[in-house]
Amino acid sequence: MNLSKSVTINEVALRDGLQLEEKILTVAEKKLLFEKLENASILNVEFGSFVHPKAVPQMANSKELFMDIGQKEHVTLISLIPNLKGAQIAAELGVKEVNYVFSISNTHNEQNVRKSTERSLEGFKDIKLYCDLHNIVVDVTLATSFGCPFEGKISEEKVLALTDQLIENEAHIVTFADTTGMANPEQIYRLMSKVKQKYPQQLFGLHLHNTRGMGLANIIAGMQAGINRFDTALGGIGGCPFAPGATGNVCTEDVVHMLEEMGIQTNIQIDPLLEASHLLKQLLGQQLPSYVAKAGKSTRKYPVPNQA
Amino acid sequence: MNLSKSVTINEVALRDGLQLEEKILTVAEKKLLFEKLENASILNVEFGSFVHPKAVPQMANSKELFMDIGQKEHVTLISLIPNLKGAQIAAELGVKEVNYVFSISNTHNEQNVRKSTERSLEGFKDIKLYCDLHNIVVDVTLATSFGCPFEGKISEEKVLALTDQLIENEAHIVTFADTTGMANPEQIYRLMSKVKQKYPQQLFGLHLHNTRGMGLANIIAGMQAGINRFDTALGGIGGCPFAPGATGNVCTEDVVHMLEEMGIQTNIQIDPLLEASHLLKQLLGQQLPSYVAKAGKSTRKYPVPNQA
Repeated sequence: MNLSKSVTINEVALRDGLQLEEKILTVAEKKLLFEKLENASILNVEFGSFVHPKAVPQMANSKELFMDIGQKEHVTLISLIPNLKGAQIAAELGVKEVNYVFSISNTHNEQNVRKSTERSLEGFKDIKLYCDLHNIVVDVTLATSFGCPFEGKISEEKVLALTDQLIENEAHIVTFADTTGMANPEQIYRLMSKVKQKYPQQLFGLHLHNTRGMGLANIIAGMQAGINRFDTALGGIGGCPFAPGATGNVCTEDVVHMLEEMGIQTNIQIDPLLEASHLLKQLLGQQLPSYVAKAGKSTRKYPVPNQA
Repeated sequence: MNLSKSVTINEVALRDGLQLEEKILTVAEKKLLFEKLENASILNVEFGSFVHPKAVPQMANSKELFMDIGQKEHVTLISLIPNLKGAQIAAELGVKEVNYVFSISNTHNEQNVRKSTERSLEGFKDIKLYCDLHNIVVDVTLATSFGCPFEGKISEEKVLALTDQLIENEAHIVTFADTTGMANPEQIYRLMSKVKQKYPQQLFGLHLHNTRGMGLANIIAGMQAGINRFDTALGGIGGCPFAPGATGNVCTEDVVHMLEEMGIQTNIQIDPLLEASHLLKQLLGQQLPSYVAKAGKSTRKYPVPNQA
């Protein structure tokens, strides 16, 4: 199928995953989850966001969580930031990588961060200058890249034009987000092929939701277009609180299991990952969307019942 | 992505779907479902199986259902048969297409039909002779083509050797079944490419289960290898009662929705199909695995909340 032999997973359950959960996890609970993820050798973790606690109360303890986890040699800890103030908090705490999120859909951006897309793009330039001074890596996530629950389809031209500007301003990673799971494999393949063709050296990512069941198919389509970095959430939980109809992120253990079965490396160990998923289920007190957590791995064997 | 512009869907909810459900639907309920499917312009329906009513009580009313539906000009009505006796019932009733299922895994075949795979293959030859005399089309489904819950991985050589024999004996369609959802996209692509390369003119199908979330990704992988016929079940219900760990078939409305979004024709109308799914949910009195039935189509738009 002409796919890369290795893939980078960015685990977002602690951020995009938990922000749609009614139950707010404590710092101690989140730290326990982080340790389970660390135990599965996860290398990239989006641990929280520096947004107003009133807007997303689930993320209010992100600072404390970061201080409690401390600096990690083998795990890149990433925080979402909605503005320059978020970058300043990151700098004060010593966070070394931030994910600046804004939406290509102006309507969704107004709902999400109460700014126009244009103003958010201007904001990126200031944030990048500030972060360069403080040795902070800046990723950018373009929400609603494949469609918006308010505006509908988003034109590829719009996405490509914004991508040009982000790369001109040296975004470390540009991640295209399918915020409410509207994208199909053909669409993913088409747009990702275009950006990879235009910028073969740029690091791109995909942030997918499994709202309409196409999550894993979209991952493969992205890989076929040359994308090898994916945001996924343990248990398949999550979604944006300001995007109606948003449901779970594509599920980390389902993705890692599929890729492992295909002989593609993620650096993540599936068995400890399933233990992390089990802990998450206990902490949230509910069944998670994950398939592999319920069914077990493809290699699972059953005893043969007694014959008549 | 180099995919075919049209795909044939074989709707199996009335057979593989309902056979794992605790609630046994009446002939009238099944007929109502069939009419909803017909209303969505479905062209191929596996409506039941002529197996022993003690083995699969959910299918005991298959004969009555067929008599009640009657012959259809625009819908191919297919019955599963496990043996020659099933073919005889089909001939008596006037069923024009049968699906003979046996398992590549000898252990699973013994559990499922109490015969060795070898004996089931011999059975096919008799069935084919009988059906040719009665103008009945014979499809064959090879269960556990991608793995068995008892035996584990199934070698490609075994699948290819069986395929040779089926084609030698002129099976109309050979369908490879991932009975307990163990297959991954790479595996599907590899094996399907081999059979298509060897037999470019033969009609092949894929019967997939979404047990580990890979169902839609496997459909795309199959299409990339040149397979354009898929068994799917309304609502994503189903599974084999004699295969431990079996869960839902890949979901018709999720597949049709994805393909429609990709510009690929199935002849099926998504809105009446979602109505059929809603009826199925009511009849079974439970939430179905389908994503699109819950989330709505990708084109669904939401009103913009009032700004502050």
